[in-house]
Amino acid sequence: VFEISWTAEAAEKGGYEHFMIKEIYEQPKAIRETMTGRLSKDDSTVLFDELKWTKEEAAAIKKIVITACGTAYHAGIVGKYYLEQLARLPVEVDIASEFRYRSPLVDSSTLAIVISQSGETSDTLAALKEAKRLGARTLAITNVVGSSIAREADQVIYTWAGPEIAVASTKAYTTQLVSLCLLALYIAKLRGAIDQAALQKIIRGLKNLPEQAHEILEDVEPIKTFATQYGFNEDVFFIGRSLDYAVALEGSLKLKEISYIHAEAYAAGELKHGTLALIIEGVPVIALATQTDVYEKTISNIQEVKARDAVIIGLGFKGDKNLQKYVDHAIFIPATEKHLAPILAVIPLQLLAYYAAVTRGCDVDKPRNLAKSVTVE
Amino acid sequence: VFEISWTAEAAEKGGYEHFMIKEIYEQPKAIRETMTGRLSKDDSTVLFDELKWTKEEAAAIKKIVITACGTAYHAGIVGKYYLEQLARLPVEVDIASEFRYRSPLVDSSTLAIVISQSGETSDTLAALKEAKRLGARTLAITNVVGSSIAREADQVIYTWAGPEIAVASTKAYTTQLVSLCLLALYIAKLRGAIDQAALQKIIRGLKNLPEQAHEILEDVEPIKTFATQYGFNEDVFFIGRSLDYAVALEGSLKLKEISYIHAEAYAAGELKHGTLALIIEGVPVIALATQTDVYEKTISNIQEVKARDAVIIGLGFKGDKNLQKYVDHAIFIPATEKHLAPILAVIPLQLLAYYAAVTRGCDVDKPRNLAKSVTVE
Repeated sequence: VFEISWTAEAAEKGGYEHFMIKEIYEQPKAIRETMTGRLSKDDSTVLFDELKWTKEEAAAIKKIVITACGTAYHAGIVGKYYLEQLARLPVEVDIASEFRYRSPLVDSSTLAIVISQSGETSDTLAALKEAKRLGARTLAITNVVGSSIAREADQVIYTWAGPEIAVASTKAYTTQLVSLCLLALYIAKLRGAIDQAALQKIIRGLKNLPEQAHEILEDVEPIKTFATQYGFNEDVFFIGRSLDYAVALEGSLKLKEISYIHAEAYAAGELKHGTLALIIEGVPVIALATQTDVYEKTISNIQEVKARDAVIIGLGFKGDKNLQKYVDHAIFIPATEKHLAPILAVIPLQLLAYYAAVTRGCDVDKPRNLAKSVTVE
Repeated sequence: VFEISWTAEAAEKGGYEHFMIKEIYEQPKAIRETMTGRLSKDDSTVLFDELKWTKEEAAAIKKIVITACGTAYHAGIVGKYYLEQLARLPVEVDIASEFRYRSPLVDSSTLAIVISQSGETSDTLAALKEAKRLGARTLAITNVVGSSIAREADQVIYTWAGPEIAVASTKAYTTQLVSLCLLALYIAKLRGAIDQAALQKIIRGLKNLPEQAHEILEDVEPIKTFATQYGFNEDVFFIGRSLDYAVALEGSLKLKEISYIHAEAYAAGELKHGTLALIIEGVPVIALATQTDVYEKTISNIQEVKARDAVIIGLGFKGDKNLQKYVDHAIFIPATEKHLAPILAVIPLQLLAYYAAVTRGCDVDKPRNLAKSVTVE
């Protein structure tokens, strides 16, 4: 006879100390499931049985507005890059609580995309209703089947992330990015905006993501070390350009939410227009350098902060031997196609926030002042 | 015989201790001069002799992209509101260092507006060249006649702010807003997007601004007191909705630049999606509440932060007796038309940053790490 000492909650955590870390580790599976059934058997194209758009429908879209809150808003910023660069459609991303009140220029040629893990975010639901009222075609990206937002939108793409319990969103974000990338490719193909080789290159990249995410999660010791070393700094800055900036925003939000560190993300080129005044000796700066087309410019910005004796943690692709010359510490992620880098790059940042919060003794799964699903405006 | 003990520099400061405070006090004059010659004698319309657009030219614009850096970027965010709400044209605002690298969707139906006090900002100049290369019509808003950006752009609107010496931009920002408002009205009228009554209401508001700005500058004691009282906090948050959010961004940048306080601005409705975790007892939160259409929602957000025992400094219109019920301290500015509120609301925030920097003993005019005109990328 032996005693089972697990509580029901601990059992649900599957042996993990917190829901957040469990959910971080569920990302390879969640990413895989979000792609399931959405790629053709020969990997030549993206399928969305839930959309079934005609070429005419795709061609009728003149612009896209994305509205969301918090982490989902950050996913929307990545989505803007995807949809603009792949489908060549103009995209505006708006904070849901702002969208409604700015008399948005939205009409029947607009596709309004709303993103919400819970599908119950009050501001996002209100933005969705406003977009509908203005005549837009609406599409929700959400994780919860039958949620208010799923029911209100004309069409829905579900992220198959599974239940997300921790207040700080992790696997919802990465699966939102996968969904947005698939959607961008789907629209791009329908509109003839992407050639087959480029499409298949990204699809191949997508298919490698679960294994690559797993690879990151296999080796978290360096990140644990940084978290212990820098977890007691009260201010941290993130810098990056282009898609790296978008991920930086999410990385800084994670640190704020659960470790209560005043983290802030900056477009790397913008720092010298003011915020560089805050960069002094010993301030940790996390510099993302996964985007090859802005790589040299990012290195210049790293040198700017290094000249002020900041401590720089660089994040780049495995095999980037150059990065190490300019940073104090480096985190490497498996190399991938540039659009997909955010999906991998965010994982070390989630881990950094998690271990920083643990180091600081914070209540990881239920951070002060925050609710999982914000159903008030 | 008496000795003149002023140095040449002090003389240029006209008796003020720093260029920054001198330039803050020059705003009534700078705002007036920026309007000079740009309003018809009967105040019925906006004139731009330097533009002289036809109705056809104005009608040919399908969208506007604004690119800038730092404070000028914040002016661009206000400009988006002006141009979208008054001229009903879609506007994208982009950080200049980001714009070039995101394959922007810009063509000959695009009006590209660049904003730079010095006219020499390297990233902005590069963005301007990129917009031209893509076929856009280009328009510069700058303070320096004959500057690189003024020479490169198809057309120029000069802000007649006079020389700005302090690194932290003040009168350049307010005159950029005035210029953008005039431009929005000019385009709105040419496109028939605004009725005469609405146009004249804003013009009347504009004409009152110099006197109203003067009124704010006559009574700075309360702001000095707040700066002394809260100047040693290392973290400050700004919240606001809609145009108040845009001003909040600029207010927080001012604090960062010259007082080295980690200030950050949030769309008031977005705080509860993460950053509320940082709001604890005693953290100063500056809440802007000048926008009547989102006033009640802003008050709700003020209550959210108040519930976490933050110290709230509210900023509203004179005569707003309600605001005081929800905040710890209140700063009042003269009431104006909603679009013009940012031009007045920023002044107390500039003063707050200035006096906080003085309290902390910072080098106000030459903050560490920053240059006045950023001519590197």
